[in-house]
Amino acid sequence: MVEVKFDFQTFFDEKNWRGLKLALNEYDSIQIAEILEDLEENQEIVVFRLLSREQAKEVFQLLSQEKQEDIIDGIAHNVQNLSNLLNDIEPDDRTAFFEELPGKVSQRLIQLLSPKEKQITLQLLGYPEDSIGRLMTPEYVAIKAHYTVDRAFQHIRKYGRDSETLNVIYIIDDERKLIDDIKIKELILADPQEKVANLIDSKFVALNVMDDQETAIKAFTDYDRVALPVVNDEGMLLGIVTFDDVMDVAEEESTEDFHKFGSIQSAITNPLKETIFNLYKNRIIWLVALVFMNVFSGAAISRYESVIQTMVSLVFFLPLLIASAGNAGSQSATLMIRALAVGDVQVKDWYKLIWKELLVSLLLGLTMAATVALVASFRAPEIILVLVITMVLIVITGSLVGLVLPFIFTKFKLDPATASAPLITSIADICGILIYFSVAKWILGF
Amino acid sequence: MVEVKFDFQTFFDEKNWRGLKLALNEYDSIQIAEILEDLEENQEIVVFRLLSREQAKEVFQLLSQEKQEDIIDGIAHNVQNLSNLLNDIEPDDRTAFFEELPGKVSQRLIQLLSPKEKQITLQLLGYPEDSIGRLMTPEYVAIKAHYTVDRAFQHIRKYGRDSETLNVIYIIDDERKLIDDIKIKELILADPQEKVANLIDSKFVALNVMDDQETAIKAFTDYDRVALPVVNDEGMLLGIVTFDDVMDVAEEESTEDFHKFGSIQSAITNPLKETIFNLYKNRIIWLVALVFMNVFSGAAISRYESVIQTMVSLVFFLPLLIASAGNAGSQSATLMIRALAVGDVQVKDWYKLIWKELLVSLLLGLTMAATVALVASFRAPEIILVLVITMVLIVITGSLVGLVLPFIFTKFKLDPATASAPLITSIADICGILIYFSVAKWILGF
Repeated sequence: MVEVKFDFQTFFDEKNWRGLKLALNEYDSIQIAEILEDLEENQEIVVFRLLSREQAKEVFQLLSQEKQEDIIDGIAHNVQNLSNLLNDIEPDDRTAFFEELPGKVSQRLIQLLSPKEKQITLQLLGYPEDSIGRLMTPEYVAIKAHYTVDRAFQHIRKYGRDSETLNVIYIIDDERKLIDDIKIKELILADPQEKVANLIDSKFVALNVMDDQETAIKAFTDYDRVALPVVNDEGMLLGIVTFDDVMDVAEEESTEDFHKFGSIQSAITNPLKETIFNLYKNRIIWLVALVFMNVFSGAAISRYESVIQTMVSLVFFLPLLIASAGNAGSQSATLMIRALAVGDVQVKDWYKLIWKELLVSLLLGLTMAATVALVASFRAPEIILVLVITMVLIVITGSLVGLVLPFIFTKFKLDPATASAPLITSIADICGILIYFSVAKWILGF
Repeated sequence: MVEVKFDFQTFFDEKNWRGLKLALNEYDSIQIAEILEDLEENQEIVVFRLLSREQAKEVFQLLSQEKQEDIIDGIAHNVQNLSNLLNDIEPDDRTAFFEELPGKVSQRLIQLLSPKEKQITLQLLGYPEDSIGRLMTPEYVAIKAHYTVDRAFQHIRKYGRDSETLNVIYIIDDERKLIDDIKIKELILADPQEKVANLIDSKFVALNVMDDQETAIKAFTDYDRVALPVVNDEGMLLGIVTFDDVMDVAEEESTEDFHKFGSIQSAITNPLKETIFNLYKNRIIWLVALVFMNVFSGAAISRYESVIQTMVSLVFFLPLLIASAGNAGSQSATLMIRALAVGDVQVKDWYKLIWKELLVSLLLGLTMAATVALVASFRAPEIILVLVITMVLIVITGSLVGLVLPFIFTKFKLDPATASAPLITSIADICGILIYFSVAKWILGF
């Protein structure tokens, strides 16, 4: 990878804009975007203004939402420049930018678009949030099946300039219904006089414009395509989704799952840039909710006050036991949440998994019981039997809670990752306390 | 998405192979692969044998490792068939398949390859595990800069049939050094008489063949390319990596992080298919290690035996307090691990984040102290002050442990996700217990 090392400061100190412009020519759009991300607000506008119109468009699309807003602010006084930029960027990137802006600001910016681009944008913004419609671009090339390959290339040369990609070409009928998609490779390798109709097999995968963006991730992973067509319920071709947009969505989804599992409410993009209040807000609700859950643990313990007073050594092992239940539960929840997310496991598989988990957790419980017996033989030999029986039971209980909860959340249309490590731990704590003191009472015969 | 619904059983019952072959024609390779994944071993071989050579190759590449091994076993007696299949599949998919096999088996299968394919395979398998070399395919099209666009297309038509993709064409000099890559779109839209040299800007991104596969993920996310060239230290073009292989690696990396955070040792691909012993093995080591860690919690408590005996109500709040420390710690660890994984945060940022975390966790601690005061006012008003002070201190401590640990692991070249939720919880438990009873001893004046 090319490292971006660029000493801007001298150019700024000497106000040598010519030199800066020449120096910028050495970098590609991605590198310039990286440079801009690290610059301060007044410097980034200077650099951005030195870019050519084509470069400005490419660089803008690569910036983070925050930087994009800075740039728009910075060039807002030059309406022509702003209007050019907004008209130049690809419709799918424009939709992604607009949907994060406050309604008023995006309305104002939309007025700066050309009539054609305005129509496209308003249409894309009309699809539901998180739908495929919001991801797609209407800029693709479609041909008819009766064309020859030669005519297809003439058509592509005429209409392909605006298309986001020419890697896949779409074949439609007279009502714009999608008949097939075909890789550019097949067209290039075909005889120019061949009819396109002879190249198609009518086996294609299309996304529905109203479907959730998650279906796009699944389709791209399964089908190894660089772009997939988007259709409405009638099968009419509306646009295409390219793999790069889907990779971004996939990364966001993974982050969201990861954060949920750590009991953070909504995905925080970058903790370095997030405000303290937002970090607080996204963490406090679960923390307080878990405090109330843990009140039950306290209540459970208080029922056994006399047991504790008679044998304080029971308390020494309390953290170890309830932690073990929670740890085993976190493990099985982790396995299920990820397997459900990548589609390895479906809700209907739950009963197969329960049996397996019962056996696995029995083995885990026995091993850990042996470990705790070893520890207790030095420190509290009088309660070894209590500890051994409790350990087996709570590892099994914790594991089953961790296994079942993600399925229950999925059943109720919630994200399985809502079964967070802290939630599983809290539930395992309560179960663990009840099991521990019940076993103690029974064995020690209080 | 097209649902795969296919009633095989009647064909098998009637041994109607002709009908089965016709029925299979209705499906594309991905759907047939899905059907195969759900079939039993004797049936899957029957279905696989009915496929055409081209179909067999495509379907094989889409199957899971387990199914692939089943298929190879099932057709092993027909050496010609087996040899055709192994020669047909793409070099990168073949490498991925071979590297998972026991050494002896892959050696035997490599002998069935044609001399050319054998050489390619041995070379790819020669690169270090997890290196870009293992991901790449040597099947691409490269042209010279002095070609006209027209001649480039002649070259592409002649040599492009075997290339995995024609979406990007590579430009090399006489020593096979990479000069640039160019999208097929640009070639198609260019004047046929134009020189290729006029189309290139020599700004390209290449991966080094020895680099870790993680750099490929980063490069694909940053650069929105469908394929990236792979070069050696001298800049010679050795092969290309396509986005679909990188998406698979990215998914595996995410799974690995997620599993590590849930304290599962190595990534388990699919819990439905994993053996009970493997599930046990990948969970037990961390669980036992955490038992030993939790022994310290017990030791910490035993130091305060007299405090507990004097005021048992302290024990009622023990699970709540240590859980709160663990939960706050899990949250900050989650944020850091994910931000380090996607590159939003670098190790050098740690001190900026500590200050932020101190403020955030102070706010969190104060809110939770208020909550616990509310709960305690009903149940144990005599220790409210102890609880409030403890809560603030342990939420801050837990959060800082969760924040710092992923950085420490990264510093020691370990995966930050090794700072798993259960590990953070265990450390927070010990800190929590020490803080709680020290505060109690101090305030209540034992």
